[in-house]
Amino acid sequence: MTYCVGMILDKGLVMMSDTRTNSGVDNISVFRKMHHWSVPGERQITIMTAGNLATTQAVISQLEERNKAPSDRRPSILEAPTMFQVATLVGNLLRNVIEGRQDNGMRSEGPRFTASMIVAGQIQDMEPRLFMIYPEGNFIEASFDTPFFQIGETKYGRPILLRGYDRSMSFEDAVKLLMVSFDSTVAANLSVGLPFDLLVMERDRFEPLHQRRILASDPYFKSISSSWSEALRQAFHSLPDYKFDIGVG
Amino acid sequence: MTYCVGMILDKGLVMMSDTRTNSGVDNISVFRKMHHWSVPGERQITIMTAGNLATTQAVISQLEERNKAPSDRRPSILEAPTMFQVATLVGNLLRNVIEGRQDNGMRSEGPRFTASMIVAGQIQDMEPRLFMIYPEGNFIEASFDTPFFQIGETKYGRPILLRGYDRSMSFEDAVKLLMVSFDSTVAANLSVGLPFDLLVMERDRFEPLHQRRILASDPYFKSISSSWSEALRQAFHSLPDYKFDIGVG
Repeated sequence: MTYCVGMILDKGLVMMSDTRTNSGVDNISVFRKMHHWSVPGERQITIMTAGNLATTQAVISQLEERNKAPSDRRPSILEAPTMFQVATLVGNLLRNVIEGRQDNGMRSEGPRFTASMIVAGQIQDMEPRLFMIYPEGNFIEASFDTPFFQIGETKYGRPILLRGYDRSMSFEDAVKLLMVSFDSTVAANLSVGLPFDLLVMERDRFEPLHQRRILASDPYFKSISSSWSEALRQAFHSLPDYKFDIGVG
Repeated sequence: MTYCVGMILDKGLVMMSDTRTNSGVDNISVFRKMHHWSVPGERQITIMTAGNLATTQAVISQLEERNKAPSDRRPSILEAPTMFQVATLVGNLLRNVIEGRQDNGMRSEGPRFTASMIVAGQIQDMEPRLFMIYPEGNFIEASFDTPFFQIGETKYGRPILLRGYDRSMSFEDAVKLLMVSFDSTVAANLSVGLPFDLLVMERDRFEPLHQRRILASDPYFKSISSSWSEALRQAFHSLPDYKFDIGVG
């Protein structure tokens, strides 16, 4: 499994992903699921991936190859004129890779090679944009009503995102919110694991504002993990008490 | 979908279930998923159900029929000598009902008729016990390490249960905890809905201590729902702040 979240704020875009891949609980590995490209001063793009690792690596590798051969006639995400066209390009490539595997005599084995992706970025003179790409190659874009996307194991970490998210929040608060959401997910699903990758893309700064890998030994994550338990308990005790005598019937 | 939780405390057992059933989002109904039987002074048993409604109703109806015909040679949960035998009886009945449907020329349609159940109760001179029954008819029992069971849409409401549960908590606090867990689930999954059924079984009291239906208009649930958002936000803001300057690399 996997857990990735991309969110859009007034100030820009914040992305976080885990790195655990597994083929059974007895076979886990660490792989990067967040990939970033930037053309300083002109654009930056981040892609996060969930699903079959061979599929997602094939997509990322083909994107890389196209970036390195700009004379090639196949379109590159570093040259697409809009983020919409970047998302279209990634979607088509993802569908082609999945279909290529399934046509290869493996269709009867079901959707083993499926994957989904979050694509985020900004191109000069345009707005930052955030997309979620489905295995079929189509996609949806984040809006004012739905300002963040999750892929992978989305459920455990969702309630706190729904309550804590605020479009006008600072990048620091957004990172804190993501840390809590990831902590809840890691606590409940063994197939999501540290280290995490974090990337902050500030609006109109066409290179990462902040980028790091959060290790299991990270003092900030450890402090969030332990103080969140205590804070939740206090929040719980601050709620009005239930009384049995009001409850007849 | 469904959401039911059964938990074991030092003081007894607390059960809560939703009542929404759906066959597509355009076809929802209200059905009771919690069923209670007691023999005052001797035993009380509660069963909560998730899964195919025709299956779970067939199981509950057959249990009821057996209770009404004590001379029948088929065993009744009101006469089984231990809670282990009650769970065995319910498990066998559940498996038989599911197999009966699948043998009926419908096996190829997959696990459409599947269901799972939580069985809880106490018989005089024995300990309160809590079981989760699988569609295959086998079951597991709650222990000191895993003192509550969820069935149905378990993920959204699980993080707060993991943090808030304490075996020595009062019944009132347990109900408060369940309200928060159900509120998080209802907020995220349309197929879980009010009203809820609540039942508290105190140790060595062989009839319900407290039993009620919580409607959408319930003032306590509404106050939990609104104050939990605020309490979570405060908990979130009480956490240490993230600082970008510690994050180079």
